[in-house]
Parts: sequence; structure tokens; C-alpha cells
Amino acid sequence: MDSDPSVSPDAPKVKRTFDQMVFVNRSVTMEDIQCYGFDMDYTMAVYKSPDYESLGFEMIRDRMVSVGYPHELLRYTYDPSFPTRGLVIDTAFGNLLKVDSNGNILVCSHGFRFLKGVDVHLYYPNKFIQRDNTDRFHTLNTLFNLSETYFYSCLVDFFTRCNRYTNLLKGFQHGDLFMSYRSMFQDVRDTVDFIHDTGILKERTIKNMEKYVIRDPNLPVFLSRIKAVAKVFLATNSDYSYTEAIMNYLLENNPNAGREKRSWRSFFDLIVVDTKKPLFFAEGTVLRQVDTDTGKLRIGTYTGDLHAGTVYSGGSSDLICDLLDVKGKDILYVGDHIFGDILKSKKRQGWRTFLVVPELTKELQVWDEKKGLFEELKRLDVFLAELYKHLDSGSQGCPDIRTIQTRMKVLTYRMDMSYGQMGSLLRSGARQTLFGSQLMRYADLYSSNCINLLHYPFNYLFMAPPVLMPHEAAAQHAADVASAELARTNNTAMMGRN
Amino acid sequence: MDSDPSVSPDAPKVKRTFDQMVFVNRSVTMEDIQCYGFDMDYTMAVYKSPDYESLGFEMIRDRMVSVGYPHELLRYTYDPSFPTRGLVIDTAFGNLLKVDSNGNILVCSHGFRFLKGVDVHLYYPNKFIQRDNTDRFHTLNTLFNLSETYFYSCLVDFFTRCNRYTNLLKGFQHGDLFMSYRSMFQDVRDTVDFIHDTGILKERTIKNMEKYVIRDPNLPVFLSRIKAVAKVFLATNSDYSYTEAIMNYLLENNPNAGREKRSWRSFFDLIVVDTKKPLFFAEGTVLRQVDTDTGKLRIGTYTGDLHAGTVYSGGSSDLICDLLDVKGKDILYVGDHIFGDILKSKKRQGWRTFLVVPELTKELQVWDEKKGLFEELKRLDVFLAELYKHLDSGSQGCPDIRTIQTRMKVLTYRMDMSYGQMGSLLRSGARQTLFGSQLMRYADLYSSNCINLLHYPFNYLFMAPPVLMPHEAAAQHAADVASAELARTNNTAMMGRN
Amino acid sequence: MDSDPSVSPDAPKVKRTFDQMVFVNRSVTMEDIQCYGFDMDYTMAVYKSPDYESLGFEMIRDRMVSVGYPHELLRYTYDPSFPTRGLVIDTAFGNLLKVDSNGNILVCSHGFRFLKGVDVHLYYPNKFIQRDNTDRFHTLNTLFNLSETYFYSCLVDFFTRCNRYTNLLKGFQHGDLFMSYRSMFQDVRDTVDFIHDTGILKERTIKNMEKYVIRDPNLPVFLSRIKAVAKVFLATNSDYSYTEAIMNYLLENNPNAGREKRSWRSFFDLIVVDTKKPLFFAEGTVLRQVDTDTGKLRIGTYTGDLHAGTVYSGGSSDLICDLLDVKGKDILYVGDHIFGDILKSKKRQGWRTFLVVPELTKELQVWDEKKGLFEELKRLDVFLAELYKHLDSGSQGCPDIRTIQTRMKVLTYRMDMSYGQMGSLLRSGARQTLFGSQLMRYADLYSSNCINLLHYPFNYLFMAPPVLMPHEAAAQHAADVASAELARTNNTAMMGRN
Amino acid sequence: MDSDPSVSPDAPKVKRTFDQMVFVNRSVTMEDIQCYGFDMDYTMAVYKSPDYESLGFEMIRDRMVSVGYPHELLRYTYDPSFPTRGLVIDTAFGNLLKVDSNGNILVCSHGFRFLKGVDVHLYYPNKFIQRDNTDRFHTLNTLFNLSETYFYSCLVDFFTRCNRYTNLLKGFQHGDLFMSYRSMFQDVRDTVDFIHDTGILKERTIKNMEKYVIRDPNLPVFLSRIKAVAKVFLATNSDYSYTEAIMNYLLENNPNAGREKRSWRSFFDLIVVDTKKPLFFAEGTVLRQVDTDTGKLRIGTYTGDLHAGTVYSGGSSDLICDLLDVKGKDILYVGDHIFGDILKSKKRQGWRTFLVVPELTKELQVWDEKKGLFEELKRLDVFLAELYKHLDSGSQGCPDIRTIQTRMKVLTYRMDMSYGQMGSLLRSGARQTLFGSQLMRYADLYSSNCINLLHYPFNYLFMAPPVLMPHEAAAQHAADVASAELARTNNTAMMGRN
Repeated sequence: MDSDPSVSPDAPKVKRTFDQMVFVNRSVTMEDIQCYGFDMDYTMAVYKSPDYESLGFEMIRDRMVSVGYPHELLRYTYDPSFPTRGLVIDTAFGNLLKVDSNGNILVCSHGFRFLKGVDVHLYYPNKFIQRDNTDRFHTLNTLFNLSETYFYSCLVDFFTRCNRYTNLLKGFQHGDLFMSYRSMFQDVRDTVDFIHDTGILKERTIKNMEKYVIRDPNLPVFLSRIKAVAKVFLATNSDYSYTEAIMNYLLENNPNAGREKRSWRSFFDLIVVDTKKPLFFAEGTVLRQVDTDTGKLRIGTYTGDLHAGTVYSGGSSDLICDLLDVKGKDILYVGDHIFGDILKSKKRQGWRTFLVVPELTKELQVWDEKKGLFEELKRLDVFLAELYKHLDSGSQGCPDIRTIQTRMKVLTYRMDMSYGQMGSLLRSGARQTLFGSQLMRYADLYSSNCINLLHYPFNYLFMAPPVLMPHEAAAQHAADVASAELARTNNTAMMGRN
Repeated sequence: MDSDPSVSPDAPKVKRTFDQMVFVNRSVTMEDIQCYGFDMDYTMAVYKSPDYESLGFEMIRDRMVSVGYPHELLRYTYDPSFPTRGLVIDTAFGNLLKVDSNGNILVCSHGFRFLKGVDVHLYYPNKFIQRDNTDRFHTLNTLFNLSETYFYSCLVDFFTRCNRYTNLLKGFQHGDLFMSYRSMFQDVRDTVDFIHDTGILKERTIKNMEKYVIRDPNLPVFLSRIKAVAKVFLATNSDYSYTEAIMNYLLENNPNAGREKRSWRSFFDLIVVDTKKPLFFAEGTVLRQVDTDTGKLRIGTYTGDLHAGTVYSGGSSDLICDLLDVKGKDILYVGDHIFGDILKSKKRQGWRTFLVVPELTKELQVWDEKKGLFEELKRLDVFLAELYKHLDSGSQGCPDIRTIQTRMKVLTYRMDMSYGQMGSLLRSGARQTLFGSQLMRYADLYSSNCINLLHYPFNYLFMAPPVLMPHEAAAQHAADVASAELARTNNTAMMGRN
Repeated sequence: MDSDPSVSPDAPKVKRTFDQMVFVNRSVTMEDIQCYGFDMDYTMAVYKSPDYESLGFEMIRDRMVSVGYPHELLRYTYDPSFPTRGLVIDTAFGNLLKVDSNGNILVCSHGFRFLKGVDVHLYYPNKFIQRDNTDRFHTLNTLFNLSETYFYSCLVDFFTRCNRYTNLLKGFQHGDLFMSYRSMFQDVRDTVDFIHDTGILKERTIKNMEKYVIRDPNLPVFLSRIKAVAKVFLATNSDYSYTEAIMNYLLENNPNAGREKRSWRSFFDLIVVDTKKPLFFAEGTVLRQVDTDTGKLRIGTYTGDLHAGTVYSGGSSDLICDLLDVKGKDILYVGDHIFGDILKSKKRQGWRTFLVVPELTKELQVWDEKKGLFEELKRLDVFLAELYKHLDSGSQGCPDIRTIQTRMKVLTYRMDMSYGQMGSLLRSGARQTLFGSQLMRYADLYSSNCINLLHYPFNYLFMAPPVLMPHEAAAQHAADVASAELARTNNTAMMGRN
Repeated sequence: MDSDPSVSPDAPKVKRTFDQMVFVNRSVTMEDIQCYGFDMDYTMAVYKSPDYESLGFEMIRDRMVSVGYPHELLRYTYDPSFPTRGLVIDTAFGNLLKVDSNGNILVCSHGFRFLKGVDVHLYYPNKFIQRDNTDRFHTLNTLFNLSETYFYSCLVDFFTRCNRYTNLLKGFQHGDLFMSYRSMFQDVRDTVDFIHDTGILKERTIKNMEKYVIRDPNLPVFLSRIKAVAKVFLATNSDYSYTEAIMNYLLENNPNAGREKRSWRSFFDLIVVDTKKPLFFAEGTVLRQVDTDTGKLRIGTYTGDLHAGTVYSGGSSDLICDLLDVKGKDILYVGDHIFGDILKSKKRQGWRTFLVVPELTKELQVWDEKKGLFEELKRLDVFLAELYKHLDSGSQGCPDIRTIQTRMKVLTYRMDMSYGQMGSLLRSGARQTLFGSQLMRYADLYSSNCINLLHYPFNYLFMAPPVLMPHEAAAQHAADVASAELARTNNTAMMGRN
């Protein structure tokens, strides 16, 4: 660890790679941050992909077969190139949708078949969904959802192809049985709940920690440094025993943990398990103390002062602020769940937010490799804009742009396919996904890994790039052109003088 | 009209001024638009500012005095430099707030006194409000709200200064009477409802059309051209008789109306009054036909085909689509109400949207005049970023940036004051307002005036500028730097060759 | 009036007629009542029937015609024998229903045609409605609703018979127009709101007080006597000016008002107008003081002590209790509205309740005249019960009871018709109506007139008859039979001794 | 069993004991009933009291101690004389309340201490609760709730007496820990859910069937007879494997099952498990078929015809009606849960209802033994009524009734104590409990045991006693008196003639 140049204080400053960078949607003066909060799963504890998703997938699959779904389903295995986060399941028609922030459909698949525009129109005449109909549309917001997303597609794929079943608009018929897409979705949800409630996934994870959980050697240093300058808390929906196992693995058994054996709890001022986020950011639940010897809850509500390293269960974000004596704006909360961690802590409590986006590593890599495609897209944009520039409502005729549009579609498709079958987590050609737009609205900072904060001083100023609105950009552009013109004229004049 | 160069087809193409431009948040291929919908008030019928707001203000003020508020209030007159749209009234503490999209407070005034940071903290320890608490916080979304916004500030100002009343946290005490900020707000709302329900504001407007309503001479040409290429409808919350009076003034009495007398209704395929937006975009109400001779509703629901120029009352956006045989994506809806017109039609129906922002004229003008300030802000940004660039979490010390931050605050304040006392409708320094962010999310297009569409052909392609996410911009920037470096090297090399 | 023996303290005690009696559902110890509250309309101020309902009917009818309904409707006049309170309108099918407390249909009419059982089944296969679907079913709870109930039936009657219109399940078709039962109901409701909001009904009432309002000469004495022993308040949804006009007529212009001119307000400790019941019994509205000189509201909320005769507007039942320093159980609240006055004050506040049921006069009269029918019904009941008494589940055969059942139906119908076309307000044969069951559940006391309290001392004990549950009654009956048997035996024995 | 005369068809008719009787709130013509539905737990399968409640109590107690509650709690054992059904827990103050249908408090205990009137007033100034505040007040509707009701009282008792804890209004303080009554209630609820969800109570029950479940030897005969005349279904919230175990014990292993071995399922036309009542009576859940070999659900929704003896899971009351081709009024539904079975099936579906009230055996026995007390109460009532009879509002003075009232209180208390510490399930003196009033409103029939239907023929007419409203009773009474008077006069006259 000491030999890691990136964290050694006296090492020569090296340029951060993109993968090590923290990106900024809204400026954050780190000097003002008095408290850091962390989620655990997929934030401190990053699960190894695709091993962990495969494990989840197999548990869902096996359980579904054991409750009566056809044995043929056992042939399916997890394919990490298919699902991305932020997809929406339409439980009425069994489709998987990628949408933009306004509900316009970007990609639509039925099982593993991707629907073409004309087929999408058959299901959605307006190529649009009313996303707030949450009874029908389920957004898969977390990395935990990848396994079930993929399994649901397997189900739809299987029944669609299987000739024992007749395909109907809302499901499949087999003799007297009707299997609606809706009930199939419900069965998958119930199965996922079963796996979480019974703890069998957690059990398997704990048994094979090396296989499923990434242990970053820098984590002890990272947390120690933060704790030296600010308060630190952990707030996880997991229960105590799982939290204990995971954090112990990450911190106490960490090869970089240092000579002096130190409890993982000593890295935190406050540890809260069973937080029930997003409820935690609203009314919350009763705050109880956890007996760290037995793992059991103490009865009654804790009302005393904060003791460092004490573990609590439940509570709410307001109680946390009280216990730590901080205000919302003083807190930087680091999590991976766009809805449960980031949107809610921002919208309801005004916290500063840091979204962990593990997919960013791949997103940046593809962006780098394929930037030529994006460049070409941009050039076609400019070209198109020029064609229309001098027309008004009285103009006759219309430029023929079909060739350009076809080329743009090809480029968009090629870009999308570089990310995976569902395209990028964040965009589809020039359009942002729902996930991308939420990331920009609610996450002040984001990065592929929370430890990337280590590459910045704790009094850093994260500066957001200035965002101009279209009319401001237009005015700016005109001004730039004018001053360039002026400069050119002056230059010419000056040259003339020469 | 024929002599107006901007609309004459054979006139030489002239550059559109900023004030005539349509700005683009999301690309719209106008060739695909098969139907144009228009709101009436502040969209087709733009009210003259500040005459119209003054009229509204005086009616509210006089009515409030007549129901028992102190006569001293009569001394107040409307000041157009104070309120802007999109402000939020905190009915608990009587403050007027300008907030960003996440609920962070940008400006806070109590009456006409602007509160400094430390005073804002007394009311709002976290400088943040939970905007979805709509019971407490009222957002003033429309230009109609300007009068009441200003009058409420007058009320707070008066009672705060008047030494007959004791100032308390939630209102004023006077002997046995307690006047809460909340009840005062309720009284203002009731008064505004009274003025709308009794129709006295409409009556005064109709009596003095020239004084209060802008009649654009291009409107008949504009609508005729649209109708030649697409379906056109009017959807207004106003009742029939007011709609009739206004539209008659705008179209039939228009000096440019042409020799042949033509009913204003003939400019539309469908006219719907009493639309009760935003309800109109959800379940709506019963659709009835209006008897245009008497202005009364026909009883029963109309179930037949569409007859051009027929006037309906009520209904819903779904019914409109059925009657006109169009889908949501085929419609460009033009309105001035960010919530009632634009957000709802976009979110619930997937319509294409065009927001009319009359304030844009002034916003662009100030932007143009003060762009030096923004330039300097940007330079300070870059300067700050440079200071922090090479630090990591092990770095000692911290750059002293207090002077720069003070300078930035001064610049922001000077920019704000150029727009008016509450600053810009759309931003406060580098930060966007709630209104600004909603405009960017929900309006595909926006402009200071709906007639600006006339400056573009009906098969125009409105291209949104490409928006890069911060990580993409960083990658892009790095690539640009690298290629510039390369170019420089090459140049040098080439020069060397010479 | 002075000669009315019932109010003269020194007159000889006479037996109260039924019409003067107060009936008891739950015992009330009047000595414990420390506060009397009164509603105004139909409680203190009883409107003359059918003159007042006719007035309301004509206003609705004329307004509906003036907004476009056919002129033929003007031929209809109000028929007091048709509607009763507590009927339910099914806005889907246009039917008027009389139901029992569980939603079972007792009577069903379509226009003025009463449907037979088989026809009722066509609409309601289970002869049952889900009453809590308040979007579809509207219960007409007050005497104010009688006019609109009747007018709605006129509408259905007219369109059903008129051959210009085709009868459909959910309304009428006429060319391109479809008139749904639902929209017709909405039009009637809107019209009734118009009549109330514009105050035209109140205006007409005030202009012709003698014609429309019953002035009980005992009212001043009644209120004076109460005020001598308890606190008294008035809580009405009417506004101040109407309240002032009505109460002035009832009390100050009362021939029995006494020589000394006395303000009507002096009869009360507290007067509250604009109460917005039933909201008044929940969160309520802001409490304001009314300036009795101008009739206008004072601005601000009154926070001081109570001054007798002061008039307030708004508020809530909790505020009233605070101002009068009484608890819910100390209050006897007298009103005519089963839902707004009685159910809500009982359920939410635990008040003692007294329901005014003007219809009781007629109900008691019919009961008295037709008690022979009820006696016969009872005898048939007993006869039937005897037939089945000794059968068990193994019994063969079954008594033929069709003749008895037919006779019972005839008797029920004859009883019903004695009350009016819709039968009694309170029962249909042996079954209680919804209104009847609510009266028993929520009204501790009830009477045809609130002044009937005058016939009882203010320390009276209103004793509820003991209610035995069926199993207790059975046990009781068995015991009675046994002891009668014993008595008979003993008697015989004793006789034997003689 | 064959010797039981009550079920032998050729036995001489004997009088039904009270315990064998079915009582009638609303007449039911059994000839019209085409379908019988049964709940299982506490309806067909009656659990042995107090063994079963003790088992539940001990499981709750032990689990609570194992999660951290003090070991001293293990000393408590179940006392069947304490709790009754229908009590209300006030989670704010930890009190157990017995209330009437309007929310007036009849009995209030804190732990095992019964509060006197003055102490009740300290908690509830109006001696009244707003029952619809279900967040605070929990009604314990079922016999399953008896164990937790008692355990919660043990908890309150323990902490109140234990001097380690300080008693506060809303809970107990112990050092830094605050144990609110609310969180203690939540812990009990969670524990009960744990016991149900893990199935440990069911497991213990099945292992010791004889100890915990009453097997009525008449059940096979009863169901066979019903099935001969009507359709029969079972609808239980239990899962299939528990249902299978219980019904097998009740029917197949029944000594009276007959020589020919017959599956318990053959007694029913339809069996539905996992019904999730009360949801079942509203929107319900997906209807699935149960594979009776494996006990697992078949995937998909069953859409075919009904096969006798088939077992389904989920569904809704509407689906049941469709499958059995019956309407709500044709069904007599027999259950023990006043809310989940009876109220909901009656209110939402219009079903005929039969409530099983095992407590009735004791209620009737006490009633019989103590009827002298009730008689005396009635006599005091009449005596009181006489005292007030001839007074009016002008009367001076007031009868002194304090002695009578004291005597009445003593009698009421003595009656209450005959039932148990909380008094009767159905009444407190002259006042009905909430449970009693709901029983009268929603149960058409009720009895201590569902098998009591066996004592009546299937074409029986259950006649409700005629219920007179107070004004009708008064009129009736007057008429009776008059005719008696007349009879006396006539008699005298006739005697005179002699």
C-alpha cells in the first residue's frame, strides 16, 4: 500500500486517469463538507461482475423452476452483455424498455428480440410511456436488479419460442392456464424477495468473499484520512450480521489494514444498519442500538449521546443529523442507488451527493475508443444545422436530408452496440437516458468508485463546468464569432501594417 | 403586413435577431409535426406589461382593503422591477424565495427586504426547502401570478413596518388579533379567485383592449400558413365569451386581417375552451359543444365527427387527439405555463412542446449588455480550477481563494441586479433557477413569442446543441488538448521543414 | 301563544303528544349537558314545506332550461309526495334508489317509473350497491336535496318519454349528442351550486320570510331557558348576512320576543357562521371575527377571550370547545343533517347529538293510522316462525309459505304507499332504511322539532329503551315463558288451595 | 355419535338448547341460499381454549425474551379470564380499551390495573377516542389476537412495576434507553408476524392436533347434507399444507367419517387457500391452481371450468362467484372474523353472513345465571323513567337519583365481572360494545358454532325479531296501554254485568 504512488503523499503528482476521476455536475467546496456518509453495497463493497450477478441469476432461476416453472429454463445462463441498469419493465406486455427522461422509448426488446420502430408502434402508438404509472412500469434502478432483469427476458424468450404455449398480447396460453406477463413479473419479484429475505444470497456471498467482493487495498487509508478531517458514517439497508461480515473483510482483513489490529467499526463515528432507505430519508423507523456481541437489537429507543463505533438499527436521516450534529448541506453522501440513496437524500434533505457508477469504467473506455463516431455525429449535426439556417416560414422547398439521417442512425446504432446489446447506461446517440438525466439532476459528483476521492485533497474545490442555456449559448456563440471576426480584422489590419 | 420584410416570402433573407429566435432544448423535426396547438392567454394574446399586471395588482389591493385590510395599503403601486415568475412563497414565514431545481435557496426576501445569508439561516438552517410540501410552499408559475406575488410582498412590508403590529415568527399580533402569514396568503388567493370568478378583470381587459393586449399584425398570416400545412387547435382555460372577445380582436379586427372578412374561428380546426388544464392532460372533463350564437353550452356530450371551426368546452387531451386523429408525438403544443401547459403535456402525453417566455427579450438584452461580467466569472472559474488541479488527498495546505470567491459574489450580484431586484428568471450567477431547469427539461423549444415560428420554414429541423455529460466533456477536452498538441507539434514540425 | 299551556310554568302538566316528544336511542343525562349547540337551517329555521322545496325546484328547472335544456321541462312542477331524504342517485344508470344500511336495494325508480324486481335485477344482478363508491352513488342527505332529487327524476322522465331521444343504458342519444345520466347529474349539481353561490335562493327567501320560514313563537323562551342553565352556541354553514336576516326574523321580530327589545345575538354565547361542516368537525378553517356592523370579516385570527354575542366565521369544533371551555361529552349538538351535523360530531368529537327530523310528524301520523297493517305483519311473522320452529336439518318437506309471503308483500306495499311514493323515510316493511339505521347509530336523541326539548326539564334523564341482542332476547323470552308457566302453576295451586 | 339425537333424522324433535341455537339479526330465507362458504380457522376448525391461546402466548413471550426483552417476562403465563376480543390498544399510552360503537370508553386498563373514571379522564379528557385513527388505535378483532393482547398487558404490567424503569406518559426510560408503548407494540406485532410467517405455531398445532383442535363428529354429516342441497366452498387465508393437515384431521380422520374412505376435498365444490382476506373481497390477487400432490402452485392463472375438489390459491370473491356461477345474495358465508370475513363480504359484496362466536356459549351461560341482575337493572330503568315522566322545561327541582345511579353502577360491575375481568364481549351494562354493534350490523346470523346450522332444515326461514325504532316503540306502547285500558274497562263493564 505504501508503495502505491497514487496515495503516497510525497510521491510525485501524476495525472489521474479518467477512471480515477470524479466528475462534477454541481460545484462542491469540499472544505465545507463536515461529514461523509457511505452506503455499503456496491459503494464500499463493490461486487465482482459478472460473477455476482450470475450467482443471483442462478438463484432466481433455480427457485423459479422449483416452484413450477419449466425445467427448460435451467439451460439459460447469465449474459452480462445484455442488461443495463435503469431499464423499465412493462408488466402489461412483457417488454424491456430503455427510455429517456420524458418517457420516450429509445430501445424496446421482447425477450431477446429487439423490436424495430414499426413493431414498437404496435405496442406504443406514441412511442412513449407514462412513467409515473408505477403500477405498470417498473424501473430497475440498482445493480442488484440486473439478474432479475435478465431472468425476466429469459422467461419471455422461452415462452415466446416454446410451441406448447400460444402467444397472446398480454401473456401466454397453455390449455386452461393463462400466464400473464404481469403474473410472471410478480413471480420474479416474489422470488427475488424470497432470496433476500431468507438470506441465502448473502450466505453464499459470505462463504466465498474473494470470489464475489472486491477488496480495495486503499480503503483503510481512505477512511482514515477522511476521519481525520470530518465525521464519517455508514448507512446501509443490510442487517448487522451481513454488514459485520462484509466490513470486516474489507477493513480488518485488508492486507493494508496496518500492523495494529483495529476494529472495522473504529473507522466510523456512526454505523446504521437496517436503514430502510428510501424511508430513511422520510419518516424513517425507530432507532435502536445493536448489541455488537450478539448482533441482536437492544430493546427500546436510544436517546443518549453518540458513542463512536456504536451500531444502530433503523432511524432516519433527521436522527442521524441530530446525533452527528450536522446539517444536510454539511454532508456528502456517497451511494450507488440513484433513487434510494441519491435522489431522496438530495430532494428531501438537501444533502450533497456522490453517485458511484461502476459502469463508468466501461462507458469511458468505449467513449475513448469510439470518439470518432461521436465526432462524425457532431459534424453531421453542424452540417444539418447549416442547411436550414437561412430558411423562414415563407421558404419554398426543403433540403433533402434523408441520406444524412440514415447515416446518423447507423452511427448511433454502432455507438450503442459498442456498450452492449442495450447500449450505453447514459445515452442513445444524441439523447440521454432516464438514468443519465437523473444522474445529472441529483448527483453533485459521480465516479466509477468512491475511493477515487482519494485522488483529491479534502479541501478540493470540485468545479462544475458552466452550463449555458440554449439562448445563452447562442448569444455567446454570436459574441465569439463577432470577436473572432474583430480579431481577424484587427489581425489583417495589423498584418497590413507590417 | 405585406410590407413586413420578415414575413414576405420574396424578401431577402435577413439574420434573425436574438429576440426573434426559437431556442432548442431537444431537436424537433418540424416536418413530422402534423398538428399545432396553442394556449391563448400570454401565448396568442400577450398582455402588455406592466399595464396589465398593474391592473391586476390594483384590483387585488382594492378588494383586500374593501374586505377589511388597512387603508394604508392603497398607497402601494405595482413595481415591475420586483417580482419574477417562478418564485416560491413560504406561507409559514411570509418569505418570497428564489430556489434552484433541488430546493436550495438562491434569494430570500421578507417584504421588500432582502435577507443576507446569516438571516436566511435563521429561517432555513440548511438553506433548503422541501419543495414537495405544497401545503406550505406555493410556486408562482405564471405571469398572472406576478400581481399577487407583488401584493403579498406589499402586505408583509406594510405589517412589518407598521408599529401597530407586533412582529412574530409566523405573523403579526395586534391586540386580540393574530394575522398569520398563512392566513394572509389565503386571503390573497381568495381575492385572486374572486377577481377571476366574477370576471371583473376580464371585463376591464375587454373594455380597453388596446391598452392591455398586444395585437401582433403577423398573427393572421402566421396561422394561415400553419393551417396550410398542419392541423391547428386552440385550447384555453378561458370561457367562450372571453375567448371570443380576445380572438376577435387579435384576428378579425387585425389590420392585417385582409380584405375578405373571415371569422377568427376559421383559423382553427378545433377550438376548445374551459379546458381546466392541467386536469385536461389527465382525466379531463365532459366534452360539450358551445353554441357560438348564444355562447352557451349545448347539453350532452358531442360524439360525432369534427366540424372545422366548431367550439367545444371541456374535454381532455386524449379526446382532442381522437377528434383530430393525431398522436401525441405529432403535436407541437405552444403555451406559456410551465406546469399547466408544458410539463403536463410532455410528461403525461408525450407531446412536443414550445414554451413562450416573454421575459426572454429582457433576459437576452441583459445577457448581451453584461456578458463581460459572465466572461469574468468564467475566467475566475478556470483560474480556481487550475489552483486545485494537481492536488490529491495527501496534499498539505490549501490555496487561499477567499479573494476570488468574494469577487465572484460581487459579480453574481451585479449580474442579478441587471435583471431586476429578484435577478434573472433563469439563473443566479452560475446556478440555474427552478424555472430555468424546468424549462430545459420540459420545453423542447422556447422563444419570447410564439410568432417567432414564422421566421422558420415549416419543414425546419430545430437542432439541439449536443449536451455532453461531465465525464464525456472531460474526455473530449483531453482529446481536444491532445489533438491541438499534436497539431502544434505537426505545425512546428512542418514549420521546421520550411 | 301566551295561552299555550305547554310553555307556561304554572300550567297543569299535560301529556306530550307524540309530535312533541323527544325519542331516545342512547340515554342522555341532561343534567350533565353544559353546552347546547344549534345548526340554523332546518333546525332553528324550519322551512315551510312544500313551498320552499317548490321554490328551489323552480330555480333549478328554470336555470337548467336557460342553459340549454329543453323548454318542455318547464311543464314540470314540484310534487312533495315523490321524494324523501336519504335516497341514492346512481349516476351511471340514472336510477333513484332507496337502500338499507348494507346497500341492499329496497325501492328503485327510473324517472317516475318504479321498477319491479325482475327489472331491478337487470340493472343490479345482486340487488345490491357498493355504497362506498361515492364517485358513482350520491346520497341525498338533507332536506335541501329534495328539490334536486325531484328535478333529476323529471329529467329522466322527460328524456325517457321524449321520442326525439333514443334510450341507451347510460343515457340518451340525439343525433350527434349523447346525454349521459352522469353528465345530467353533473349539470343538476352545478346548477344547485350556482343557485347557492349566487345567493338567489337566499335572496328570495329573505324577501318573503312569512311564506318560507316557520317562526315558532316559543323560540325566544326556549333559548332563554337554555341560556339560564347552560352555554349556547349557533354553528351554521350560512354566511353572516343570511344568518342575521333569518335569526332576526325568528327572534327579534318574534311576537313573543317580549317588551324589551333584545338583539338575537344576545341569546347566544357564541355565534359561528361559514362553518364549512363537515370540515368544521375535522381540521376546520381559520377562525375570524365578523364585524357585525358591516357584516365583513375582520382580518386576522381572533386569539382573545370569548365575548358573548360575538360572531365568528370559520373555525373548527376544537376551537369552539376551547373558546367555550367545554369538552365534547358536555355538548348536546342539535342539527338536521345526518352526515354533516350528527354523524361527524359524534364520530370525530364524541358530542351528544340531537337530530331534527321534521318528517317525523308525518311518519308518526301514518304509523298511528296504519298500525293495523304493522300488527298484521307482526302476526304473520310469528305465524311463519311457528311453522319452522320444530324442524332440523334432517327434516323432510317444507311448509308452503307462498301465500303468506304474498300477503306480507301486499301489506308492506300498502304501508309504504301511506307515506308517499317512495315510502317511509325510515323503513320499508320490516327493513330499516340507510337513513333509519344512521339515525339510530349516530343520533342520541331525535324529534320532529328542536323546540320539543321545551317539554322536558333541563335536568331530565332521557332513558333509552334497553336493547337486547337476539340471543339475549331469546334467553329473556324463554325465561319469561318459564316464569309465566310457574306463575300459572302457582296460581292454579293457590286456587286449588282455596 | 350415531346416538346423538340431534342429527338423527328419525329422532324425536327436541328443543334446541341456547348453545345450539342460531340467532338472527336479519331474516334469511335459507331456501334461497344456493351456496355456502366457510372460513377454516376458528370456523370449521375451532381451537381449544385456553390451550391454543396459551401456546401462542408462550411463543410470543419466548421470542420477545430471545430478542432482548427482560427474562423476568418468562414468569408470566396466559390468563384466559383477562382478554376478550374486540379490545382496542392505544399505542400512544399503552392502554387497553373497551369501547362502544361510537368510540366512548367503557373500560380502560393499564397493564392489569383497571383505571377508575377520574384516571381515565387524565388520559382521555372526553372519555372518547377517534377510532378511525388506525395509526394509533389497533382493534384486536380475532381470537388469534387474544395471546398478543394479553402479552402486551404483561409487558405494560412488568415495566410499570419494575423499579429499574421510570414511568413516563408515553413509555419507560432506563438510562439512555426510552421504550415507548408504541415501539413495544410494534415489537409484539413483529413477533406475531414472525411466528406466523415462519410457521412455527402451525407446526406445533399439527404435531398435537388432539390438544389444540376440536373435532366435531358431526362435521362430515353437516357438510354432506349441505352439499346435497347447495354448492359449498372453503376460503381460508391459510396455506395449502396447513389447510390439508387440518381438514384431513377434521374430516378424513373423523370417527364419523363413515366406512368408505373419502377425501376431505370431496366435501367441497371449491377450495381456495391463501385468500388474503380482506383483500380477497376487493381486488384480490392472481388465482392459481394448487398441485395437490406437491402442494405447490401451478404457474399461470387458471382460466378453465371448475373441477370439483380442485384447490386454488389467491383469487377474489368476484372470481369465486364466476367459478361457482352464483351471485352475492345466493351465498351464505360463515366465518369468525368480524372484519375480514363478515363486514367485508357484506359491505363489498352483499353476501349473506353467519358469524361464528365461540364466546357465545359463555355469554349465554352468564346471562342465564345472572339474569336477575339485568332484571333489576331494567326495573331501576323503569323507575327512573317514571320519576322524570311528568316534568317539563319549566319544572322546578329535580328528583334525587344518586342512590339509584350508584346501585346501577354496582349492578353493571357485578354483571361485567361475571364474564371475566374485561366484562362481556358484547355489552357493558346497558351499553353495547363496538364488537356487539358490528355483530348486529354485519352478521345476518350468528351462533357459537357453525355446526349449529345442522339443527335447522336447509329450507328454514330464519326470522329476525321485528325492531322498532324508539318513536315506533313509543307509539306501540301507547297503543298497547290504550287497548289494555279498553280491555280493563270492558272487563269491568262485563263484570259489572255479572
